[in-house]
Order: sequence, then structure tokens, then C-alpha cells
Amino acid sequence: MEYFGNAMEALIANLAHLPGIGRKSAQRLAFHIIQMPKEEVEALSSALIDARSQVHYCKCCCTLTDGDLCPICSDTSRDAGLIMVVEDPRDMAAYERTKQYKGLYHILHGVISPLSGVGPADLKIRELLERLKDPGVRELILATNPTVEGETTAMYISRLVKPLGIKVSRIANGIPVGGDLEYTDEMTLTRALEGRTDY
Amino acid sequence: MEYFGNAMEALIANLAHLPGIGRKSAQRLAFHIIQMPKEEVEALSSALIDARSQVHYCKCCCTLTDGDLCPICSDTSRDAGLIMVVEDPRDMAAYERTKQYKGLYHILHGVISPLSGVGPADLKIRELLERLKDPGVRELILATNPTVEGETTAMYISRLVKPLGIKVSRIANGIPVGGDLEYTDEMTLTRALEGRTDY
Repeated sequence: MEYFGNAMEALIANLAHLPGIGRKSAQRLAFHIIQMPKEEVEALSSALIDARSQVHYCKCCCTLTDGDLCPICSDTSRDAGLIMVVEDPRDMAAYERTKQYKGLYHILHGVISPLSGVGPADLKIRELLERLKDPGVRELILATNPTVEGETTAMYISRLVKPLGIKVSRIANGIPVGGDLEYTDEMTLTRALEGRTDY
Repeated sequence: MEYFGNAMEALIANLAHLPGIGRKSAQRLAFHIIQMPKEEVEALSSALIDARSQVHYCKCCCTLTDGDLCPICSDTSRDAGLIMVVEDPRDMAAYERTKQYKGLYHILHGVISPLSGVGPADLKIRELLERLKDPGVRELILATNPTVEGETTAMYISRLVKPLGIKVSRIANGIPVGGDLEYTDEMTLTRALEGRTDY
């Protein structure tokens, strides 16, 4: 397709490289972009460059940020005795949206997955162990996803950390709020039963 | 959400301005972008600026292009006696994909729509009439969409052009190839019957 000239084609091709954006969406976006105010296009263009060049891992929790420490690690009002281990910065963002958790995080940037060739050394586990040398840490909450890989990773970390005398916990499995027992899989039903609490 | 610092937030906010990209997709894209090779991000960033600054309307058919004339209008092997009128450059691209049409196009950039305040003067109809002064034009094919606005626009143009002695045609309505009569609406069935051809 070269109906619209090279500049347009280059834009469409570049947009279509992004995940979840196919050729058709890229075309639709490109048409929108060339009709956007010039300043907005310039803002988007520099936001790309800035984010790519400035964003790196937080020195402490390994989330993505542009400072030395991320806003959460530098917030002294948070409880530094609690560390929640998640797979991904987006999981951290999901827990932040609950506004209920006041501890810190540690981002692994993946899970142990022998099939994809990801071993413990590819994750930020060494950085986690380094943080746990701080005697102020009371509890490590394992919040990897309840998948085979997530469970394996949680198990691996708990075995490393328990000998250090730090309490290790795992987020609960169960029926999602608003969910329907009829449509819930057997594994979740079993876990919900096992994890029942006094009423 | 300011968990990831300003550069990341600026990127997410800018991406979320694009049509069809919500906050969640923008976040997913941003995470991908900061992990992309630096050269790819730079290519995308400059493609944005280049397309916005270089792309404009083709002097002849009003499609979007970066030259004076678009690749189709400058292709002398095409039949300049046939002009297909479409609403949008994407409709032109759709017909180009058929590889069957060898004439030229004219892009209206919209349809007459009193409800949205779009009148004939807002479309590229004056430019079309200008092109029709060329005595080489034999036929004008009206290929606006078969919607109320598209039909109104086709009707309006045909009334202007017929007095000039140029043949005016309209693309056919009917059952889409691979379609199912059972699930086809009454209007389409009626049009398919009216438009039946000898077999």
C-alpha cells in the first residue's frame, strides 16, 4: 500500500509495530495523527523520546521510574516493613488503585518459566534479597499471579526467604467479588473453600 | 496514577489521547515502548513529526499524500477518463486493494450531513467540478457509502454533474459475497433484486 506517500506509509509501518496495533488500526491512527494540532503531535513525539531515554528501574523496588527512587519508595509515610512482590509494574499499579495497601513493592520483571528459558537469575530476586538485609522488614507478601509460573516463583522465593526469619505470606485465591459460583472453575472453588475465614 | 514518574505518565497521557486507545492500552503501549530498541522509538517519534508536517491533500484528487500529486494521480498508465468519488482516503485504499480499478479517484473528505452541520461547501465538490472541465473525463462513479448521508451526497453530485454531459454511475448494492440471504436486511435484499443482472 503506497497510496498515501512515504511519510504516511512510514508512520503507519511504525505504528503497526506496536503490540496490539494491526495494519488497519495503524492506518486509522495515522489518519487521526495528521489531522491533530501540530503541538499535540510534537508532544507525543517528544514524550516517546523522553520516556525511552529517562525511564529506568527504581534503585530500590525495580519498578520503572525516571528518578533514582520511584515515588512510592521515596514516600516516607509508607510502611517500609511490608514488601509486596509482584511480577510487573502494572501489577503494582493495580494494587495502588485499591488505595488499601500502604507498604512497599518489589518488581520481579517476570516469573520463573523454564519453557521460555526464564530462570531465577533473570528476575530481580538478587535485588530483593539485598533489600531483606534491612532488619526493619517484617513481612514479604507474595503477589505473583496464581498461574503455574507465578506459583513456582512464589514457592522459590518463599524457600529463600523463610530461613531469614521474615514472615512470608501469599495473596488469597477465591471467587472474585461479583463473581458467580456456577461459572467459577473447580480449582478456584477448591481454593476458596480451603481459604474460608470465620464469619 | 503517578507510580512511574513524569516521563512515563506524560507518554501514557499522550498515547491515551489517540482514538480507540484507553488508559489501559496506553499503559501497555508505554511499557512496551520503553523496552523497545532506542532506534525504533526514534523512528516512530520522527515518523510522527514527518507525517504531520509533510502530508497534505493531493492537488488533483484531494487524497492525503506528501508530494504535489499522489502516486495514483501521477501514474500515467491509469485511465484518467474514469473518476471514482469516495468519502475518505481509506475508501480509496479499500478499492485499490481489489487491484481491479484502473481509473482515478476523488476524495470528498466527508458526506453531506445537515445534522452534523456538514454542507456541500465543506466537501471537495468544487475541486471535483474543476476536474470535470477536462474533456477527457468520460464517467464519474459515485462510491459514497450506501447510508442516508452517502446517498444524499451521491444524489447531490449527480444533479450537478449530469447537465455537464458526463456519464454518472453508482456502485451496486446487493448481498455481500459469502453473505447469507437469511441474515441480510430487507433493504439490501430489495436492492439486490432490483439490481439483478442477466445470467
